[in-house]
Amino acid sequence: MADQRMSGVLAPVITPFDERLDPHADRLLRQCRWLLSQGVGLAVFGTNSEANSLSVDEKIALLDALVDGGIDPSRMMPGTGCCALPDTVRLSAHVAKLGCGGALMLPPFYYKDVSDDGLFASYSEVIERVGDDRLRIYLYHIPPIAHVGLSHDLIERLVRRYPDTVVGIKDSSGDWSNTVGMIERGWDNFRVFVGSEGFLLDNMRHGGAGCISATANVNAAAIHALYDNWDSHDAGHQQQALNEIRAIVQGYPMIPALKATVAHFSGDAGWRSVRPPLVALTAAESERLIAHLKERGFSMPGLG
Amino acid sequence: MADQRMSGVLAPVITPFDERLDPHADRLLRQCRWLLSQGVGLAVFGTNSEANSLSVDEKIALLDALVDGGIDPSRMMPGTGCCALPDTVRLSAHVAKLGCGGALMLPPFYYKDVSDDGLFASYSEVIERVGDDRLRIYLYHIPPIAHVGLSHDLIERLVRRYPDTVVGIKDSSGDWSNTVGMIERGWDNFRVFVGSEGFLLDNMRHGGAGCISATANVNAAAIHALYDNWDSHDAGHQQQALNEIRAIVQGYPMIPALKATVAHFSGDAGWRSVRPPLVALTAAESERLIAHLKERGFSMPGLG
Repeated sequence: MADQRMSGVLAPVITPFDERLDPHADRLLRQCRWLLSQGVGLAVFGTNSEANSLSVDEKIALLDALVDGGIDPSRMMPGTGCCALPDTVRLSAHVAKLGCGGALMLPPFYYKDVSDDGLFASYSEVIERVGDDRLRIYLYHIPPIAHVGLSHDLIERLVRRYPDTVVGIKDSSGDWSNTVGMIERGWDNFRVFVGSEGFLLDNMRHGGAGCISATANVNAAAIHALYDNWDSHDAGHQQQALNEIRAIVQGYPMIPALKATVAHFSGDAGWRSVRPPLVALTAAESERLIAHLKERGFSMPGLG
Repeated sequence: MADQRMSGVLAPVITPFDERLDPHADRLLRQCRWLLSQGVGLAVFGTNSEANSLSVDEKIALLDALVDGGIDPSRMMPGTGCCALPDTVRLSAHVAKLGCGGALMLPPFYYKDVSDDGLFASYSEVIERVGDDRLRIYLYHIPPIAHVGLSHDLIERLVRRYPDTVVGIKDSSGDWSNTVGMIERGWDNFRVFVGSEGFLLDNMRHGGAGCISATANVNAAAIHALYDNWDSHDAGHQQQALNEIRAIVQGYPMIPALKATVAHFSGDAGWRSVRPPLVALTAAESERLIAHLKERGFSMPGLG
């Protein structure tokens, strides 16, 4: 495990809630098992997991429930980056202790216009305080939402200082030139994931590691198939088919749309709940989304 | 207390750290006593308090230390708005239980482009879950940093639904037309604070409640004096003098500059520490800042 780095397709697993808006561990466990059955790894507590609407205690309890439920931690890359240093340290330490394949780590994202020195110190403090050589950090670059980004120079400083700990990145900038620029830096065995399967084929052709994408929650097997067959003759067509499904889902607010889709195909309406500040799709929106997906032949075999 | 609403000048009290970057409660207690002696109230855990770099446990421990140390809770308006609903609920409940004059509440700020319905639900869930009629919420509108703002229509919905709970706002938009627009809505006894003393005189002339300003950490008595004398002949000159001090401090990153200033005038160098992702001023920057302030006759009498 110590030298294993992750690759492939991962889903920022959507987080189910019960009627009181508390996390629903059993529902999450079932979803994680289904995703693994489709070949998709588990970036629980990503942006699309509503991770930043969960407390650290809630995240630790869910992690424990997943591992107790038999989920292989080496297939998990939980999000651990919080605003507050002690929160990030506590969650990252737990993730390392469980033997998770990685920790997907946002920078602290409240304060804006912070310097590379400050961000370097943030990651460095986390690594030193966790003090566990099982910790594998995948940086999380998502400027459209965090409004705090990670420059290539900062990443290089981190990789050089912590070559066995800072081992990859998820690039959710939506800017392909940023992704390819990182790959071209040639950091040794550094794993570059794109944040959308829309860039998956390009990423694989340039030597990237895969994708961690919201839509992998629903279109799991098809996205994994392109990852597996990116150098086949059919890859271009596969990419186009993925893009068409993604375009349908993106016509709605992403997280509520993913939840409505899983609710429909699992037959478990409880999946529709989101925590504020998000708002669930209306019944009419859900119906339109599902109808549109079905027109394209979309389904979620084996779910529910 | 039940019907008391806050007004005046408050400081988002800077948070001192020890050598391990843990919060230093005794130092904070001394600073709060000094601020109260200058006529300035305590918006602990504001943006300039590095509140979003502190865990909920750390904030609760500091609050308890302040109240145990004899600080009058009615003079406190702690920041309680976190990303995650359970964190905001837990902290706000503690603030209400302690009898604090108010809770300054950011909206959940990770997810962007959220709807008024979603933000209404966020505040509503907090209010219902805290379930304590001692809770007094001052909304916190700071789009330059949170990138999630509060529309006048949203505020009006909240005030109408919770007239005894949602009682005011801090407007850190830096946009005077937004401030005056809220005052003109004429919500009953709604307290509008500006987020900078640069707008204090304008705010008082239009019927506002005061200001909650970073620089009140250092230029406390002078800002409070303008609040007390806003209708005097001298008010314009006072405003100008405040602006000059503010302009000096604003020439540096605000939080490190405030800490360097308090470190100098208290003789306690430990004040200089900041948590990542912030970076302390260099010694040269601090010296230049202090020299510049002293040229203007600035001092912090009674401190340290």
